[in-house]
Amino acid sequence: MFMSCNAWIVSIGNELLIGRIVNTNATWLCRKLLILGFSVKRVLTIPDSEEDIVEVVRECVNKGVRVLILTGGLGPTYDDITSEALAKALGRGWEVNSEAYSMVVEKYRSRGFEITNYRVKLAKMPLNSKPLPNPVGTAPGIFTIEGNTYIFALPGIPSEMEAIFNSEVEKILGEIGSKTYFLEGTIIVEGVPESIAAPIIDKYMKRHGKAYIKSHPKGFESSKPVLDIRVLVGGVSVSSAEAECSEIVRELSGELVQNGGFIRSTSIQRLNH
Amino acid sequence: MFMSCNAWIVSIGNELLIGRIVNTNATWLCRKLLILGFSVKRVLTIPDSEEDIVEVVRECVNKGVRVLILTGGLGPTYDDITSEALAKALGRGWEVNSEAYSMVVEKYRSRGFEITNYRVKLAKMPLNSKPLPNPVGTAPGIFTIEGNTYIFALPGIPSEMEAIFNSEVEKILGEIGSKTYFLEGTIIVEGVPESIAAPIIDKYMKRHGKAYIKSHPKGFESSKPVLDIRVLVGGVSVSSAEAECSEIVRELSGELVQNGGFIRSTSIQRLNH
Repeated sequence: MFMSCNAWIVSIGNELLIGRIVNTNATWLCRKLLILGFSVKRVLTIPDSEEDIVEVVRECVNKGVRVLILTGGLGPTYDDITSEALAKALGRGWEVNSEAYSMVVEKYRSRGFEITNYRVKLAKMPLNSKPLPNPVGTAPGIFTIEGNTYIFALPGIPSEMEAIFNSEVEKILGEIGSKTYFLEGTIIVEGVPESIAAPIIDKYMKRHGKAYIKSHPKGFESSKPVLDIRVLVGGVSVSSAEAECSEIVRELSGELVQNGGFIRSTSIQRLNH
Repeated sequence: MFMSCNAWIVSIGNELLIGRIVNTNATWLCRKLLILGFSVKRVLTIPDSEEDIVEVVRECVNKGVRVLILTGGLGPTYDDITSEALAKALGRGWEVNSEAYSMVVEKYRSRGFEITNYRVKLAKMPLNSKPLPNPVGTAPGIFTIEGNTYIFALPGIPSEMEAIFNSEVEKILGEIGSKTYFLEGTIIVEGVPESIAAPIIDKYMKRHGKAYIKSHPKGFESSKPVLDIRVLVGGVSVSSAEAECSEIVRELSGELVQNGGFIRSTSIQRLNH
């Protein structure tokens, strides 16, 4: 829908696949990547299994996807195998990274803990990786490049993942993302079933190539329809995106009224910058 | 981890990939499939794009995955293309299904709405599909079989997806799933860092092949560690699963205490039957 670099998010962890945990990390990352100018094409959740990690990383790199973000599996337990599997997928050695080792040692020593094998593991990374300091927890993130693909591996714990993303990943992605400004318009309309709104929205999507318009039905389609319509517009400047978003919201609202709708509210919100 | 039929869940929708909506459908389905005796191996989120849907459906069928559940893209709007893309992926025609047509007509006519093209679309399905009545909304679900794979397409709106699953899908899956009973034990322990618990948990996992044990760190690893440890055990009878789960919880708690832990609580819960 927008011209932008593509991205994949891969969430690793059996706890997601047995339905214990909702994958809020992926949603958070999708939003972040969007406003940094990337278009997320796939979110995958896979088991803590070397075979699956290797398969998915290789597929992503072979497709030339610009950004791959892995989350989960960086901790000290036996099923935390993301780093080792990543090395295998890339055909690289898996060794203690001296910079990462300093980070891990400092975290544990400052609290009087010994460095056991289970802790040294946190500093092992694929060769030619850059460790990303973890301001919240103990396991550093991993950044490496393979072919066209920038690869990041981050912890699965949301507070750690978000902290490393905000302090490290965002800077790196800022250098390769397209500078796109996003605005989101919202129209809440009563009395128009989605099947009537559909061809109208269709027309506006075709007219505005850089807009993504989506209706979310809130009431019952054939008795009390309420639609929450979102108009996402990306542009090279805030003013151009704002002008286009306002125009679509105004004209689309007008047509919904002509089709028997009552506009409960409209609003426009900046998503970045 | 358990001997069971494998399953994939594919969530279709740009609104998920731009981070507007958290994918709670996938989590709900993962839990349901687990307790019906299926092992979810992949959750994928993909765009409303024919190319992506076709690619993923074909990959799943070619791998012989036993169950594929698609959610989203069954509505009346221009970007609701799941049904048509599914037909294309399976190399089948895409036509009005007369049983589905009766369902859709009845929903609209009973409320005095006309049957437009945008509404007829809700009744179009791949040839050799069975429509699944939707007790909540207007779009029927789709059930069809290709090779070894049972394929279900359900609406993306959670209340509709859950209603069709509970009233229709569960019955069908009950015939092919393995009859497994699940119990989940919980141990909340203070004062043991995850890097100390890791080798202990590792030992219990190796000893109990049918158990899945996972520690979720809640405090800070190296200062105030709190672990929420979950012990998932599947068995052919409730009593065998219960006995094994109790044994693991008791013995594992004991070893955590020997390693300086304070057990804040333990519990055991039945997940099905």
